[in-house]
Amino acid sequence: MVVGSGASPVVPSRGALRPLGLREVRITGGFWGDRQRVNGTASIDHCRTWMDKVGWTGNFAIDDGVGPVEHRGREFVDSEVYKLIEAMSWETGRPGGEDHEAELVELVAMVAAVQQPDGYLNTAYGRPGQGARYSDLNFGHELYCIGHLLQAAVARARTSDEPTLVDVARRAADHICETFTDEGFCGHPEIEVALVELFRVTGERRYLDQAARFVERRGHRTLPEHEFGWSYFLDDVPVREATVLRGHAVRALYLACGAVDVAVETGDDELLAAVARQFDRALARRTYLTGGVGSRHLDESFGDDFVLPSDRAYSETCAGVATVMLAWRLLLATGESRYADVIERVLYNVIATAVADDGRAFFYAHTLHQRVPTEPPAPDKEQLRFGGGPRAPWFEVSCCLPNVARLLAGLSTYLVTEDDDGVQVHQYASCDVETSRLSFQLRTNYPDDGDVLIRVTASDGRPCTLSLRVPAWAAGATVEGDLSRRVFQPGDEIRLRLPMRPRWTVADPRIDAVRGCAAVELGPLVLCAESTDQVHPDLDLLRVDPTVAVNAAPVSVSGGFVASPDEPWPYRTAFEEPPATVDGVPLIPYHRWARRGSSTMRVWLPTAGH
Amino acid sequence: MVVGSGASPVVPSRGALRPLGLREVRITGGFWGDRQRVNGTASIDHCRTWMDKVGWTGNFAIDDGVGPVEHRGREFVDSEVYKLIEAMSWETGRPGGEDHEAELVELVAMVAAVQQPDGYLNTAYGRPGQGARYSDLNFGHELYCIGHLLQAAVARARTSDEPTLVDVARRAADHICETFTDEGFCGHPEIEVALVELFRVTGERRYLDQAARFVERRGHRTLPEHEFGWSYFLDDVPVREATVLRGHAVRALYLACGAVDVAVETGDDELLAAVARQFDRALARRTYLTGGVGSRHLDESFGDDFVLPSDRAYSETCAGVATVMLAWRLLLATGESRYADVIERVLYNVIATAVADDGRAFFYAHTLHQRVPTEPPAPDKEQLRFGGGPRAPWFEVSCCLPNVARLLAGLSTYLVTEDDDGVQVHQYASCDVETSRLSFQLRTNYPDDGDVLIRVTASDGRPCTLSLRVPAWAAGATVEGDLSRRVFQPGDEIRLRLPMRPRWTVADPRIDAVRGCAAVELGPLVLCAESTDQVHPDLDLLRVDPTVAVNAAPVSVSGGFVASPDEPWPYRTAFEEPPATVDGVPLIPYHRWARRGSSTMRVWLPTAGH
Repeated sequence: MVVGSGASPVVPSRGALRPLGLREVRITGGFWGDRQRVNGTASIDHCRTWMDKVGWTGNFAIDDGVGPVEHRGREFVDSEVYKLIEAMSWETGRPGGEDHEAELVELVAMVAAVQQPDGYLNTAYGRPGQGARYSDLNFGHELYCIGHLLQAAVARARTSDEPTLVDVARRAADHICETFTDEGFCGHPEIEVALVELFRVTGERRYLDQAARFVERRGHRTLPEHEFGWSYFLDDVPVREATVLRGHAVRALYLACGAVDVAVETGDDELLAAVARQFDRALARRTYLTGGVGSRHLDESFGDDFVLPSDRAYSETCAGVATVMLAWRLLLATGESRYADVIERVLYNVIATAVADDGRAFFYAHTLHQRVPTEPPAPDKEQLRFGGGPRAPWFEVSCCLPNVARLLAGLSTYLVTEDDDGVQVHQYASCDVETSRLSFQLRTNYPDDGDVLIRVTASDGRPCTLSLRVPAWAAGATVEGDLSRRVFQPGDEIRLRLPMRPRWTVADPRIDAVRGCAAVELGPLVLCAESTDQVHPDLDLLRVDPTVAVNAAPVSVSGGFVASPDEPWPYRTAFEEPPATVDGVPLIPYHRWARRGSSTMRVWLPTAGH
Repeated sequence: MVVGSGASPVVPSRGALRPLGLREVRITGGFWGDRQRVNGTASIDHCRTWMDKVGWTGNFAIDDGVGPVEHRGREFVDSEVYKLIEAMSWETGRPGGEDHEAELVELVAMVAAVQQPDGYLNTAYGRPGQGARYSDLNFGHELYCIGHLLQAAVARARTSDEPTLVDVARRAADHICETFTDEGFCGHPEIEVALVELFRVTGERRYLDQAARFVERRGHRTLPEHEFGWSYFLDDVPVREATVLRGHAVRALYLACGAVDVAVETGDDELLAAVARQFDRALARRTYLTGGVGSRHLDESFGDDFVLPSDRAYSETCAGVATVMLAWRLLLATGESRYADVIERVLYNVIATAVADDGRAFFYAHTLHQRVPTEPPAPDKEQLRFGGGPRAPWFEVSCCLPNVARLLAGLSTYLVTEDDDGVQVHQYASCDVETSRLSFQLRTNYPDDGDVLIRVTASDGRPCTLSLRVPAWAAGATVEGDLSRRVFQPGDEIRLRLPMRPRWTVADPRIDAVRGCAAVELGPLVLCAESTDQVHPDLDLLRVDPTVAVNAAPVSVSGGFVASPDEPWPYRTAFEEPPATVDGVPLIPYHRWARRGSSTMRVWLPTAGH
């Protein structure tokens, strides 16, 4: 194990690009620096406080081996504690991060104490008064929870020499390898991706083999039938035969991550291509403008092609995290920068939207059209309904904030990569980068403006390339400075200018939900109209004119509000609308919505005459 | 009790109009005659066969008082047996109907045998190994089930002199009045409407009083909190303060029916007006073109104003039945024929759509846009997923077919009313009508054409009025014959001609889901494009031109298919569509869809250029 170099959640042994670790890339400020700070100083503590309050950490506190233990929370809440441990590990391990070492030691000890002698570890099953181990593979989440335990242990291993959690993880993984040698797998994927990473940390080949078995075993309808169908569990079609991501979005994306990891480590290019193909189709047909996925509240699923209702968007925060995980793995495996475009879109429009300014409340789901004014929840109340509503301090299902916390704590590792030829910058956040080849400072106010300055601080004196991603939206981007393959010198400067002009965007006509509408994007940001800024509170009556260019400062579009034609029956031969009052319609970044009190909001703006 | 006259599900003691009974209005053939025949000869038997097969009747077979009895099916399946008894009662009681008397005696005896000495009756609770009585008011459905028992008993009382079921119902109702004197009510309304009708049958005032208490008690958030919110159970706002139907659609509509019944019997005009106002707003903002309601699969709820997605329409068949029940009550109470318009729309576009031609399969939910080809279910398999999919023989939750069966068996009672001044014809189905004032034959091929012939067969010799509803869509309707208040003579003829021209319909622009689309209606029928009839299988590529009048015979519109612009990302500056091939696009009645093999379908047709 190497602490420091390799301090990154995903460290493949092969692939087009290599990740850099927490100590090699340090975010120094700006948009993501602010969010990392709030995450480290508020969100992580907030998660711990709530997990104590609602008893999820307490589930680990008692294990007299007799019970009955009163388990609190849903069947998968062990995983939240593990995600918190993972977040604390990255946070403690990153230079400038908050030090959670004492808490880590405490939590790890609690977890270790309830592990059974044979390696089994779950607080909701297997003890007196509880369900039997593995009696509900569809929804029991036991392997899912262990998956998060393993990821936490990987984070711990890569940021500390303290071995307790890795030892727990090894025993849990060994137990799973022994128990699931011939059959069975978890309704909620996660163990796959985790086993591969634990293999990468430990070199234990059986973990990789078991992950590969789990991936291959799926898709033959062997899980019990459920009203959501086998697709919900991705048990409808084998991974390498499927053509699109489908079913429960987080399940689908975690499985895809695991399949990529297996494919990379085993050299299985067919499997890698299968996942890439599925992701491509999901991006082309099942993804919101924000990069969010999941259009159904019922089963938290992707939904059918082109079914992307704004007002019933599910777009779970965790699915955003999972999309970043998948796109990152495919970027490392293939080197194709379009995956970094996806990561950027999700970071600015899902992840940045999710968390409140103070880091202590979050969206579970991300509507793109808030029709009725948001109602802020009571600050000290756990929300039962996790699918909708405003940012809340905590939900009965609170997977999202710990998930974002672990992503943000380790975010610097998603910005820059290297390969044998040089260094690649994928995301533009102010940061200091130090590699054995090349070190530089990157400074930018992105996305407030599109100027990026890179100043070389060190070089090993050999020629290399420095690659800067130009996002797909950034036509007309310019570079000052020499980006050719060469020997970089300390003091060399490269200046990238990405044109940050607001632009109209329309949707494929097969997306029925936004027919006759247009949206505005500005750089990587999706914009929206929030009632807070408008002259009329009813955004259903807003009409815009996309033939007029968007005004840049402040951002607004030409349009206004029509009178409301209230009728006893909403269908008739014709609805003649009076022309909209023509006025400027102010827009704000989508990630800023619902931060100024009760409001309505829409991303897709109806165009006049439709 | 009067058998024969008054043989109708709803017999208010006051109101603008009085219903006629099964023997006073007999459907003689045509559209609804065919459906009544299939219902009587196939659907009712089909329900019985399946209820035996899946154990729902069997739940009544064993009651040794000790148990444990293995209860089969969901917690509310007693109600399905009761709805079947109700359907059999109307069917047996209607002239020309099938005789289910022997089965009725058998089923009633089974039900009577499991009633507890104190009147409690439910096969899923209260016995050893089961949950305690009334331990889950949110979802236990115990009062809901008794409500259906009472409605079955009312039907039995009004069609037979055999008293067993009414005695069972009285004991059950007495038990409820004693148990719920001071607090408590059922998460699923139904007992309210049933208690009022049992009051009407028995004259027992305490049943009415208890119904009134249940109506008033609701809306104060006294049910346990649930993730769907109190609105799901209509426990968010008191009935007389609410402004719109909301929450679970069937729950909301059943409660509204009960509230109307209470209001009518107690002379509570404020309560009546409150329900009418709520229904008005639901019609104006929360109802599909088909008359279907319920836009959310998650909680089977109405959804917010103007959220009416075609492809995720829930529009449960039972909500259609419940809408007919509510509109009928309001029609009787107020005499406003617009409620008969609603009934017509729901009958032709929800109820007629629900049942397969052979009466042995049914839609649970009614999509208005089938995006991926329907997949017929295996004929002998119970469907777990009840929210979507094609017509199936049976579902794990099979409330819909018994509900339709009881409606169709008694359908003749929804066609014609009387008041002190004469007779009102609300629905145009071929039928023979006999009242003490006036008798006549009504003959029509409606809705195949719009000609309706009424021939008077008897009169009491006193002047009266004969009123014929002209539907809101039927501008230009003509009448031949004298409809003035007068003495009608046998042989008098009245001929109504309703213009059956197909017409374009567009939606209120606030219904985002169908912006830039148009639909076609023909008389009371909503039409649709089904892939079966089209030159191209992908209806997402269909574009129509609503500036060209609809072709009448056969019905088709001007339009065609555009080429598919497949792109890796479905959002961009512009999607330039090639013009659609111009061709006739055939349309069929919505109620005929999915009867000719696998298909896709859409009601709302995208218009070119949008």
